Amino acid sequence: MSRGDLYVIKIGGNVIDDPGKLNWFLEHFSNIEGKKILVHGGGKLATELAGKLGIEQQMVDGRRITDAETLKIVTMVYAGYINKTLVAKLQARGCNALGITGADGNLMVAKKREHASIDYGYVVDVLSNRFTIIRWANLLNSHTLVMAPITHDCRGQLLNTNADTIAQEIAKGLCRAYDVNLIYSFEKSGVLLDVNDEYSVINRINPAYYTELKQKGLIFAGMLPKLDNAFEALNNGVKKVIIGKAEELDELVKGNAGTTIVND
Amino acid sequence: MSRGDLYVIKIGGNVIDDPGKLNWFLEHFSNIEGKKILVHGGGKLATELAGKLGIEQQMVDGRRITDAETLKIVTMVYAGYINKTLVAKLQARGCNALGITGADGNLMVAKKREHASIDYGYVVDVLSNRFTIIRWANLLNSHTLVMAPITHDCRGQLLNTNADTIAQEIAKGLCRAYDVNLIYSFEKSGVLLDVNDEYSVINRINPAYYTELKQKGLIFAGMLPKLDNAFEALNNGVKKVIIGKAEELDELVKGNAGTTIVND
Repeated sequence: MSRGDLYVIKIGGNVIDDPGKLNWFLEHFSNIEGKKILVHGGGKLATELAGKLGIEQQMVDGRRITDAETLKIVTMVYAGYINKTLVAKLQARGCNALGITGADGNLMVAKKREHASIDYGYVVDVLSNRFTIIRWANLLNSHTLVMAPITHDCRGQLLNTNADTIAQEIAKGLCRAYDVNLIYSFEKSGVLLDVNDEYSVINRINPAYYTELKQKGLIFAGMLPKLDNAFEALNNGVKKVIIGKAEELDELVKGNAGTTIVND
Repeated sequence: MSRGDLYVIKIGGNVIDDPGKLNWFLEHFSNIEGKKILVHGGGKLATELAGKLGIEQQMVDGRRITDAETLKIVTMVYAGYINKTLVAKLQARGCNALGITGADGNLMVAKKREHASIDYGYVVDVLSNRFTIIRWANLLNSHTLVMAPITHDCRGQLLNTNADTIAQEIAKGLCRAYDVNLIYSFEKSGVLLDVNDEYSVINRINPAYYTELKQKGLIFAGMLPKLDNAFEALNNGVKKVIIGKAEELDELVKGNAGTTIVND
């Protein structure tokens, strides 16, 4: 396989829930040259649907506790409605999108999380050692992949999986074949020095600066797992990790906006 | 492309709604040698979900009238829950399934049906002239395809599409590259001479016999569109069309059960 750039871009619920933002994003996403994978989260629709159906939702540490009924809902909403809506919208823009989950083509295998005190239900950990590049490369040769945050256990069980984790696993798994740029888009402009000031974006963080920022207590708690994941991705061969706003996609891709996390 | 057998098999709601039947069917489906495509309908889940959410369902001539809310539900249920459940169950049986809709990979394009007196909503007609073999063949080289009855119009709109029609369009479209066997499985053992007698299966129907059966009024009204579609498929190059019970899949494939429709 010849190397080339691959963009793995994760969008969060704030983009999915806003038709105007979403259309703008998809227009610009479809214009990115080269191979690309869009990983989407869920947005509010799953929670709304669960509410209408009277199914209670529990969250622990920002992760949904997934019982069988909730799994059914997230599979419907994420892999069905959201995934296919994104695919159809990309096709309308001339981008040959193919919607997938980890079960499709056996692309991503996970196992149910075991925890001493909390039953996370069908929330899972991805098995990196079951990642097979050739399966992804075959599909990427002709398609832009759109991945819903659902995996499987190879025993017939679908599993709800954190979309940030999926994006990271794809990036790590594919960097042996591609120069991978991993972009996490979220509601902020990037990693902020002052969480209340959107203009305080830190443009570049390397390991030494990260240590310094943490020691000074300048990293907002919610950002710590994102940054830890970013460095883990870089340590596993990912070329670049960028965190920023979906509405600035073009500038994020160029490295002119958001926070770029690097290893040197 | 080298020719080879391709099985296009449609399963109806009666199989999807019955976990025991479904598991048996998938076990035997995964054992069929060679390339295969599973086309699934919806089952009761979409109707149940619409009921729980208070969305009224209208049917005209056995076809669901699809408004925007109903389209959302069928996309969730068909392309999400049912499609991914089938894919995960096939993966568990060592069958490398990939779930698709017509929007994915731009595989099947349709347009909204125009009708003088009835607004069918998002129910559609498939545009056969937009069928591209190479897109299907690329995916079929490494995967068993599992298709939900959802297509798109290339302008960003998803469309609810009759699963029988989808199976027929796939069979017709791919018979230029494969020897296509089209199997419609449903709740009866085949085309029956006496609709109340499951043992009165007609083993073989050719055009002359079909004309005779129709003239004698021996074809149950519900079977007429299925048989008309079968002959249309044969006239378009499909090798064989078989109609019968999903529970007899192995024998259907061998031509030892159900009704085989042939052109001579």
